[in-house]
Parts: sequence; C-alpha cells; structure tokens
Amino acid sequence: MIRGNDPILLTPGPLTTSLRTKQAMLSDWGSWDEAFNSVTAALRRDLVDIVGGNDDYTCVPLQGSGTFSVEAAIGTVIPRHGKVLVPNNGAYCARIIRICGYLGRAVVELPVAEDQPATAAMIDAALVADTSITHVAQVHCETGAGVLNDLPGIAQVCARRKKGLIVDAMSSFAAIPIDVRAVPFDALIAASGKCLEGVPGMGFVIVRKKVLDACAGNAHSLAMDLHDQYVYMEKTTQWRYTPPTHVVAALRAAVDQFKEEGGQPARLARYSANCETLVSGMAALGFRPYLRPEVQAPIIVTFHAPADPAYEFKSFYAAVRARGYILYPGKLTQVETFRVGCIGAIDANEMRNVVSAVGVALKDLGLKTVAKPIPRAA
Amino acid sequence: MIRGNDPILLTPGPLTTSLRTKQAMLSDWGSWDEAFNSVTAALRRDLVDIVGGNDDYTCVPLQGSGTFSVEAAIGTVIPRHGKVLVPNNGAYCARIIRICGYLGRAVVELPVAEDQPATAAMIDAALVADTSITHVAQVHCETGAGVLNDLPGIAQVCARRKKGLIVDAMSSFAAIPIDVRAVPFDALIAASGKCLEGVPGMGFVIVRKKVLDACAGNAHSLAMDLHDQYVYMEKTTQWRYTPPTHVVAALRAAVDQFKEEGGQPARLARYSANCETLVSGMAALGFRPYLRPEVQAPIIVTFHAPADPAYEFKSFYAAVRARGYILYPGKLTQVETFRVGCIGAIDANEMRNVVSAVGVALKDLGLKTVAKPIPRAA
Repeated sequence: MIRGNDPILLTPGPLTTSLRTKQAMLSDWGSWDEAFNSVTAALRRDLVDIVGGNDDYTCVPLQGSGTFSVEAAIGTVIPRHGKVLVPNNGAYCARIIRICGYLGRAVVELPVAEDQPATAAMIDAALVADTSITHVAQVHCETGAGVLNDLPGIAQVCARRKKGLIVDAMSSFAAIPIDVRAVPFDALIAASGKCLEGVPGMGFVIVRKKVLDACAGNAHSLAMDLHDQYVYMEKTTQWRYTPPTHVVAALRAAVDQFKEEGGQPARLARYSANCETLVSGMAALGFRPYLRPEVQAPIIVTFHAPADPAYEFKSFYAAVRARGYILYPGKLTQVETFRVGCIGAIDANEMRNVVSAVGVALKDLGLKTVAKPIPRAA
Repeated sequence: MIRGNDPILLTPGPLTTSLRTKQAMLSDWGSWDEAFNSVTAALRRDLVDIVGGNDDYTCVPLQGSGTFSVEAAIGTVIPRHGKVLVPNNGAYCARIIRICGYLGRAVVELPVAEDQPATAAMIDAALVADTSITHVAQVHCETGAGVLNDLPGIAQVCARRKKGLIVDAMSSFAAIPIDVRAVPFDALIAASGKCLEGVPGMGFVIVRKKVLDACAGNAHSLAMDLHDQYVYMEKTTQWRYTPPTHVVAALRAAVDQFKEEGGQPARLARYSANCETLVSGMAALGFRPYLRPEVQAPIIVTFHAPADPAYEFKSFYAAVRARGYILYPGKLTQVETFRVGCIGAIDANEMRNVVSAVGVALKDLGLKTVAKPIPRAA
C-alpha cells in the first residue's frame, strides 16, 4: 500500500511544522554541553526580542506543555496571599481559575460571554469594585472560541491601577503584536508548538526581572519553580532538569524561519490571509463563523456545525481527515460547533484545499444543509 | 568545512539515540487524533509489560522531564498527612527530599554513604524506629555515583511492614530487572530519554490502580495531578494538555527497537558489556572507578579524576569532546571525579573508542599520572 502524505493539522498546536524544523531533531544533544546551552541562551534572547523586551525582562523556559508554564508563572509570580482577577470567556480562562484553586491563590472570576472579548472597562470596574485584587491573569487569544481579548487596553488599566499582569499568550505570541512598551506585563506565557511553529514539549515565561527576583519561596512546586529555574540557568547556562533537547533544537530552527519570514508582522499577515481564505471559502459552502469578525483572532475559527440532523462531528472529522485535513472539535458548552486552525507552516493554498475537502466530505456524507443561523443579541 | 558526525553522548540521558528513533519525529501528529492516541495507549501497555505488571497496574505518562514525574508521583500518591522515608546516597535522593519540602510532605532522611547501597536491613530498622512513616521513596540506581540500591530487598520490607513504596527507576527502567511480582510497589517512575533510548521530554509513572483510585484531591498541582491525568486519559484516550507528540512518537519507535533487541535482558547484557569494556579499558590507562564492582550498576561509571595538578575537568572534557565523545561531570561533593555513561544506542565498540579518545586527550593535555588511590573504609 502506498502511504500518502501526513495529514495537515488545522489545530491550535500541535500544528503542522516545516520539514526543516523537524529535521533539526535528527541530532542528539548533551544537556551539559556548551553547544546545546548556547542554543538555549540565544533562544531566550530571541523570545524576549519578539515582544520588544529590553534588559528589564528575561525569558525562563520550562519543560512540559504550555499549561505547565502557565501554572509555573501563577505559582511563582503571585505571592501566596495574592488575589487574582480572571476575566473568563472560555476554556483557557477557566483553566487558570482551576490552577489558582489547586495553588490556593484567591480568585475573583469576571464572567464574560464566550463570544465577547474582555475589555479594559470591564477590568477597570472589577478592580474598582475589589481593591484587594493584586493581579490580573488575562488570556490574550481565547482559543476556546477564538476571541481576541483587548490586551493593550487591559495592560494600561493594570499599569494605572498598579496591579500585576500575567498574560497567557499561548496562541497569540509571535503572531499578534505584543510590545512591552505598549503592553507592560509582569509575566507572559507561551509555548514552542504554537505560532512559533515549533514542536510541542516546552513552554516559556517572559518575566520582568525585578518581579522575578522577589519571587524566591513563592512556588508550590520544585519542578515548576520559575525563580529556581532562572537562578540556576543564569548561574550555569543549563536547564535545572533534563531539557527536551530535540524540542529545543526544533524551536531554534523554527525561530530562525520566523525571523527569515519577517517576524511577527509577516506571520500575522500569513495567518490573516489563511483566516480570510478559510472564512470566505466556508461561507460559500454555507458555514457561519460563531464570532463576529471584529472579535475574531486569525488563529482559530469556530464554525457552527451543519444543522442537518444526520450531522455528527466524529464522522465529519473522519471524512475530512480521509481527504488530508485534521480539524478540531468545538469547546463550547451551549452550541454545536467545530474549529479550524489557521496557524502552522501552512498558507492560503492549504485553506483553499481544506474548504474543498470539507465540500467533498459534506457531499459524501449526504449533509445537505450546513448552517443554522443562531439568533444573536446585539 | 566538513562537519563530522555528531559526538556520542556518554551521559545518563539525554543519550545517543538510534537514527530510526529520531526519524520517527519527522511527522506531525494531532493530539486529538485517534492515530496518535492509539500510539499513547499501546505505549502505556508496553511500559506496564516491561515490569510484568498485570491489570492491577496502569501507566500514566506526563509531560516534562523525569523529575516532573517524580514530583507528580510524590504529590499524588502520598497523602498530605503522609510521612516519607528517603534513604539518601546521592543527588537524586536529595532531590526527592527537596520535593517533599516544597510539597509539605513530612520526610525522614536516612543518610547512606555515597559509595554504599541502601539495604533492606537499613530500611527495616528505620521503619521500626519510626512507625509513623507511611511511605518509602527509593531511588533504584543512584546515578550521582552510579550505585545500585537493593530494590528487591527493600520492596519486600515495605510489603511486610505495609508501607507504600515509590520507586525512582529513572536510570534503571528497562535495563535492570524489575518485576512487580518480586518487587511490589505503589508507584514507579521513569522517563523516555533513559534506558528506553527515546528522546527526553516525557516521564511516566507505573502505578497500582487501587492506590491511584484513592488519590483524588491529593495533588498540589493541576499540571502534575496524576490522578486527574489518569481519569481524563481513561475517559478520552487523550492527554489532558498538549502532549509532546514527537517525543511520544520517538518513544514508540524506541520501544519497538527495545522489543526487537530482546527486551530488558538483552539491554542489560549490552550495557553490562559496555560497562566492562569501559572499566577495563580505563583501568589500562590507570583510571580507578569510585565504586566497588559489587555495587556498581552498569548504567554510569564514576571515575576518580587524574591526580595530576594540571588536571581540570573543563579542558579534559573539551579534549575528549573534540575526539567525538561527550563525558559527564562528577556529582560528588567530597572527591574530584567524572562520569561516563554506558547507556544509549551504543555498544562496546563505542566504549573502546572513548577509551582511545581519553588516552589521546591525556597525552595531548600532558597529563602523566592518572589515578590517585583514595583510602577507603572497609
């Protein structure tokens, strides 16, 4: 049997990476060896540069998935007596609330509708209502539905109210603009396998040095103590515990390609073109996005599922997969949806092709009507 | 400039892996996709099989380095009011003590000399002396010096005294025999990038189901809550948070090769031959191992540094590295040493070659005398 190409991942990470990125994993590296540690050091500098960070900021990489870095940032940066405001418009916001519960950090949840962005005005009002809040934990792009929250406005409110700001930029970093001069933050978290287009296996936290220096003893966990990781890495150039060497090497190759492409503006342009191609192609098939265009980040698009009673996600997924594309399930509680990622080492050609694959799948599955308009409040 | 082959890693993980293992990372995998989740499921079964585990045991994989899994096992399996006996003959035992400190688990440290194994008699005496101890956390092969601790004897004592046993088998799993029928344990931790010869980036815990089922609510961390990871994985077949997909695929390829080679007995035979070739070759150059042969595990060998006053590890390391081999620094506090790993996708030829490389390096560095005999208590 002839094996075809690997299917293209239209998922919010892991995603399709370039062959050059994967080929960077064809060497073994010693974790104590200078050749490897200079890769780590250069990566740390490059990651700070992406957000325009100056010497006030450092980057602390951490083993594990991005969620490990989110937990590490919360556990390390927020003191045990801190109180965190978490605007909640999706699954990743809810995860931060759950982490705070495990760690015993007091939380004030600010509920926001899943199809609406968190805004500066909402955060300002919540900070006025409870002045004992010490920190805001803000998800930048909430990939539950794909909403872009108003990070610049929220960062300005936090700065004015003198509250610490922790940003979960997992699915926005390197694609959506973030500059520390306009968006001051205490800590910002992202990971290797998202818009940087590396492979999954490590996260990192870009953190204000002055804040981190005061964090000794905060952490609930040895493995996730960012302060300890930082102090050790500064002293020795090494990771504290075995680094995911191949993942790091792949990220190095991915960041090289990111820079060659033209950095964040070029990546945003490519993803935006992907998103537009996808949305317009799907519209021609009758699919409606769940979000209004003005709050849609060009990272992942949630579509209403076909209204046809014969529709079920599993067989739809399988039919599109058989045609070379891997979709992502919806993560909303109220409405039947599915998601399509716009990120990874892919361009508008792939988006045209997935639309074609979806069209063929619909036909083969005998799904005739595709979108049920959902009444939406203004 | 012609680039030579990558240097061979004689380190206790990351280590040199086969090309086939690395090539398994040349595909991208969807973390929600059944093709990937069936890889995870088969790996979990195979890892339990390696210790002869039956349906009483399960395997819970976890993102991050092996230390993350050690902390997860301690935090999940030991109740918050538990009390842990930690026999301490090296850096990895000391790390467990440090983890318990972070997690607020009461610890009884049992100091053991760095060149001596922990024995059943020592553990029995400690359990008699303090009957409030609930668990023993035992490192199997302490790679600080390379000592093989008496795990079978210690497991029997724990069973007889009805104490929970947590085994850090990071550097022994798949090489040194461990069978749950002879070595009953509550939880045993290892990782992808050690004797299984995968790449680093994930650990796993083999755990008695009955124990794990009672662990809800114990964990100090969401990311490291093994019970939550287990429940979610059983229900969905998926990892809770983004898995290191390429690392998992590499481990699948590595375990296939492990089975083809003949499993644990074949691996032990190869590593033992590596160790013997190394020790005898180094002896001919005048190097003395730090450990007596009867306590030396065939995983990593600690050698006394050359007594020549001109010796310093850094230049010695660089000279051997330039000849194609990456050594490992010593981790002992009292004696100047270096370490050479015997594990990875290497055979006795490589061990002969590293001895040759060390010989040339000594000559080039002008180091004339190599070993200073250290008086040792009987």
